Amino acid sequence: MSTIFTKIINGEIPSYKIAEDEKFIAFLDAMPLVKGHTLVVPKKEVDLIFDLENEEYKDLWSFAQEVAKKIKSAIPCVRVGVAVVGLEVPHAHIHLIPLHKMEDMNFRNERLKLTHEEYVEIQNSIINS
Amino acid sequence: MSTIFTKIINGEIPSYKIAEDEKFIAFLDAMPLVKGHTLVVPKKEVDLIFDLENEEYKDLWSFAQEVAKKIKSAIPCVRVGVAVVGLEVPHAHIHLIPLHKMEDMNFRNERLKLTHEEYVEIQNSIINS
Repeated sequence: MSTIFTKIINGEIPSYKIAEDEKFIAFLDAMPLVKGHTLVVPKKEVDLIFDLENEEYKDLWSFAQEVAKKIKSAIPCVRVGVAVVGLEVPHAHIHLIPLHKMEDMNFRNERLKLTHEEYVEIQNSIINS
Repeated sequence: MSTIFTKIINGEIPSYKIAEDEKFIAFLDAMPLVKGHTLVVPKKEVDLIFDLENEEYKDLWSFAQEVAKKIKSAIPCVRVGVAVVGLEVPHAHIHLIPLHKMEDMNFRNERLKLTHEEYVEIQNSIINS
């Protein structure tokens, strides 16, 4: 069965897309810790990020670097944090999280509830930064 | 003034080293969240990981991939998590954290107090895995 990320990649589930190429995609997290919280995902369905073949793994991080720079330009924050946890969806993904303080990266925090308009505003600000 | 990581790189502060090459170093975190919690650090003193030049940035992640595979072999865990936060030491560093559950990656958790012998045992098990 496809992972939820594969369904997003295939357009079966909508997402607020930030960037995409043949191998990777970035979209806003549907349960964001903070505004601008973005997921970067390889289109190949691999569970563990470290199991990606080295070239693809490096290209994934390179893609994430470009996305992180756009997030940093668009979203007020001290820095963009990175997390790879993956205990919930068995499809490798990188969290890019605009941080003001350490506590912003606690995955036990309550998630933001954003409106469609807020998502679109964040999406456009990152894409156009 | 040098960062604490530069002092470790220069051998002015001791560490339990896991791997090293000309550009990067990995050593056990002195305040581990769990056993095997390791830091991967570029020798160049750069604050934000995304500000590293793209080739060096990719090589850093490649170095971290090798270290993570060794940790996964040596330390019982479900997977090796990744975090880049950097609000405390202004020298880019990647946390590699053997995870059993989401909560293992909460940086507000109490840190383990390990003995010298325990650190050496963990260090050797990762190096020799």
